[in-house]
Amino acid sequence: MSDGVRSVTIRDCAIGGPEVVVMAGPCAIESREQILGAAEVVAAAGARFLRGGAFKVRTSPASFQGLGWDGWKLLREAADATGLMTVSEILTEEQVEGARRYVDLAQIGSRNMQNVPLLKALGRSRMPVMLKRGFGCTIDEWIHAAEYILNEGNQDVVLCERGIRTFETATRFTLDVAAVPIARKRLGLPVVVDPSHSAGKRDWVESLTLAGIACGGDGLLIETHPDPAKALCDGAQAVELSEFPCLMEKARRVAHAVGRSIPAGARLAAAAC
Amino acid sequence: MSDGVRSVTIRDCAIGGPEVVVMAGPCAIESREQILGAAEVVAAAGARFLRGGAFKVRTSPASFQGLGWDGWKLLREAADATGLMTVSEILTEEQVEGARRYVDLAQIGSRNMQNVPLLKALGRSRMPVMLKRGFGCTIDEWIHAAEYILNEGNQDVVLCERGIRTFETATRFTLDVAAVPIARKRLGLPVVVDPSHSAGKRDWVESLTLAGIACGGDGLLIETHPDPAKALCDGAQAVELSEFPCLMEKARRVAHAVGRSIPAGARLAAAAC
Amino acid sequence: MSDGVRSVTIRDCAIGGPEVVVMAGPCAIESREQILGAAEVVAAAGARFLRGGAFKVRTSPASFQGLGWDGWKLLREAADATGLMTVSEILTEEQVEGARRYVDLAQIGSRNMQNVPLLKALGRSRMPVMLKRGFGCTIDEWIHAAEYILNEGNQDVVLCERGIRTFETATRFTLDVAAVPIARKRLGLPVVVDPSHSAGKRDWVESLTLAGIACGGDGLLIETHPDPAKALCDGAQAVELSEFPCLMEKARRVAHAVGRSIPAGARLAAAAC
Amino acid sequence: MSDGVRSVTIRDCAIGGPEVVVMAGPCAIESREQILGAAEVVAAAGARFLRGGAFKVRTSPASFQGLGWDGWKLLREAADATGLMTVSEILTEEQVEGARRYVDLAQIGSRNMQNVPLLKALGRSRMPVMLKRGFGCTIDEWIHAAEYILNEGNQDVVLCERGIRTFETATRFTLDVAAVPIARKRLGLPVVVDPSHSAGKRDWVESLTLAGIACGGDGLLIETHPDPAKALCDGAQAVELSEFPCLMEKARRVAHAVGRSIPAGARLAAAAC
Repeated sequence: MSDGVRSVTIRDCAIGGPEVVVMAGPCAIESREQILGAAEVVAAAGARFLRGGAFKVRTSPASFQGLGWDGWKLLREAADATGLMTVSEILTEEQVEGARRYVDLAQIGSRNMQNVPLLKALGRSRMPVMLKRGFGCTIDEWIHAAEYILNEGNQDVVLCERGIRTFETATRFTLDVAAVPIARKRLGLPVVVDPSHSAGKRDWVESLTLAGIACGGDGLLIETHPDPAKALCDGAQAVELSEFPCLMEKARRVAHAVGRSIPAGARLAAAAC
Repeated sequence: MSDGVRSVTIRDCAIGGPEVVVMAGPCAIESREQILGAAEVVAAAGARFLRGGAFKVRTSPASFQGLGWDGWKLLREAADATGLMTVSEILTEEQVEGARRYVDLAQIGSRNMQNVPLLKALGRSRMPVMLKRGFGCTIDEWIHAAEYILNEGNQDVVLCERGIRTFETATRFTLDVAAVPIARKRLGLPVVVDPSHSAGKRDWVESLTLAGIACGGDGLLIETHPDPAKALCDGAQAVELSEFPCLMEKARRVAHAVGRSIPAGARLAAAAC
Repeated sequence: MSDGVRSVTIRDCAIGGPEVVVMAGPCAIESREQILGAAEVVAAAGARFLRGGAFKVRTSPASFQGLGWDGWKLLREAADATGLMTVSEILTEEQVEGARRYVDLAQIGSRNMQNVPLLKALGRSRMPVMLKRGFGCTIDEWIHAAEYILNEGNQDVVLCERGIRTFETATRFTLDVAAVPIARKRLGLPVVVDPSHSAGKRDWVESLTLAGIACGGDGLLIETHPDPAKALCDGAQAVELSEFPCLMEKARRVAHAVGRSIPAGARLAAAAC
Repeated sequence: MSDGVRSVTIRDCAIGGPEVVVMAGPCAIESREQILGAAEVVAAAGARFLRGGAFKVRTSPASFQGLGWDGWKLLREAADATGLMTVSEILTEEQVEGARRYVDLAQIGSRNMQNVPLLKALGRSRMPVMLKRGFGCTIDEWIHAAEYILNEGNQDVVLCERGIRTFETATRFTLDVAAVPIARKRLGLPVVVDPSHSAGKRDWVESLTLAGIACGGDGLLIETHPDPAKALCDGAQAVELSEFPCLMEKARRVAHAVGRSIPAGARLAAAAC
């Protein structure tokens, strides 16, 4: 972009360029059927990355903790079958080396934004990294966390705004839309927006998706699930797969209005939106 | 709109209908020349309301407190000369009766959102009211505050999201974009977005303006000043008048993308945007 | 005190001197029986002021709004019968003149901290004023609000820290204990602590009461009710009257430990504490 | 204590018993001279643990990152020479095994509160652990984080309230005093209070120290430095060593007032306090 943001290119996809890069899929990988079903729908609707967690950081130890390496194998299989790339969270330094086969964009989660040993390990790895903002952290701290990665020589860093913690409880977190242009300008890195974790409820995901594009977001990270009511993780905020193509069509229109684009989906039912 | 929001109509302008209603002008009315200059530019760019404070609630008693009734006379004169309507903050019950001549849409400021006697007085007055969200208040409390007005029999209530107080200091307040669809759905009233007070700095006003439309805002309340460096109030967040038409053109595109509209301005230089 | 805080003296009671001045009573005045019963217990336990709201600012219009002037008459009667002074919230400029007969210390509530016309009216009145901190306001803004009163020539201003709004929901508000020494030092005014509104639940009132004294609070504002389960307002945070003397005895010990005092109650059952 | 809190005993010291256990020392271990000087003063004033960071998590990579293993050797030496135990932050799973020689109480820092692999590693280690509250985390999340440790079979867990992030900027964080009784009651674990990180400025450390005891804190974690102006880390909030004995004497009085104790120091100059 002409606005001084350096794009991060993975395969043929430049994050930070004219395209608003869509990353979508379930919160957690649960089964081959689930992840493959999600991959087919999101690929057909114009997404470029398949998201899905294999190693989950859950608030409570009683919650589902993910399928681990088996999950990543399923994620890779589903992405390869549908022409998508993968984005998934890495929790420990030990996972970095093995993750290369399965993960195209390594996500550092909100709760690990200031886990310095992990930041440095991914800095040394040269894997493309997406650094989520800590929900209790300022833009300043987020930028400093990115510097821990950049300082190790890894320039392929994408930021992700996913909402901050405020007194408002009607949403799970408050999406800080201003953080998008501020972080882009201050660090010159692309910023992806996650409307799902901030909304916490699928009813508000569409509004936050469109706001995320309008404020200059370089990408979107959206949770979608074939059957949200049965999801093992964060079902309340997952968009139903059947509604995902329509959401993408609306996103496409706003992207166009701000001079950007989202690739046309293969089997879009735009008329219904 | 088909989404269950009841529009509030003032003269020929329906807030909550297909049009995204733009309200613009300086933070404070400072002089005839200033307010008239602002009125001409914002009217030509497609705004419907002229904003300007005459009675200011300032954090410190040492700050400029406004021109009072003389200010309102200038606001009326400038609006009438340019075909605009007026929106301005009312501070006390005593001002309500006299305000009718000058103010078409009575604003209750963020610091007065829970000033119950004032809420009731404007409820009894039957003036159209725009209720700003208290910067420390939840959506629930905002809705209850609106009920104080509605319960007096006044149904012409518009809400205004203007940012909430969070730990982030890069902006003055954090614009809570999710509050727009939530408040619209829960109370069925139109919601205007104020990008200026949340940004606190003009660099981020454009992003928040576009996000405000994308998330479903029924209107915009934007501060603009002929010479922000000399503004007596909140100059840092005022958009220069010379840049306002271009901001409106960008807003128009996003409005169109979400199925709404902003009237074309008379002398728009869209090519430059 | 030798620490530069100017005390505010009402009758024989100096707020900001060696005594930690206790103000206690119900959230709202409900009946003669209720307020008189409360007055007797709190007076006997060492309190100096009887608190009780007659004009309530409630979040929802559906909640009990107070007994109004009749409430103040009952408050005065109960205080006079037990040798207490009165503290109660004033909502409007119109109430100021009439309030003098009933209210010894005029409280400006948290929701009115930036209601400038009310601040100025109480500034002109020369009544002793207790200014509660807005729950969404910084210490800076609180100090500026106090300046609106001081600038009108009224020096009898006491501040009250009552908790701020944060993301934590286990309490109603988060008591900002550091605000006590900071506000005392920056403005040289006494600071009273309200443990009840911040706790929101009576289980935590004792801890916050003792912390409020330990951090340098010049007084305490505590809600207590003969039958909290039946209270018309904020019953969950009211200490039962039967437990109030024991709470005062614990407070007295901490006050003594920091070089201050709380007057001995008449019929204290210290042994039980 | 009779209040249902299970104490954690390290050598002869029970955290969660009648004693308010004081842990003090510099933010970062900088040199033998510095840490030994600090150890002598804090031991003489009644502290039981020497604190000092060897592996620092700093917001910016440009800040001092600690002396590492050499730092821990100096910490051990200084503690052994003065009869103190040690408390220090552990950053990675790899450090756990080696840390046993140097660290008596392993601290999990605020930024690592939800670092699940680290929580589990310390759970398996059976080292006594002090879990600091994440500055952006609720009490609920803090309790769940503790459960990750407890579920691995390690019951020697102490919590530490160190302030949460709010909109107030006069302090670095807002000490949540109510969290002390709430966490103690809900999980039955002792809670230590850190007045230094919340204050961010030494002027307010005394008030927060005393409030921390008054609200029921089972211990204190205080930063003190021989020459705060030259400290490599957080100098602004460090109490000067020369003032530490007096602070302890004041703390002792409040501890006594709430039925607890702090051991008498060897060379206390109580008269000066």
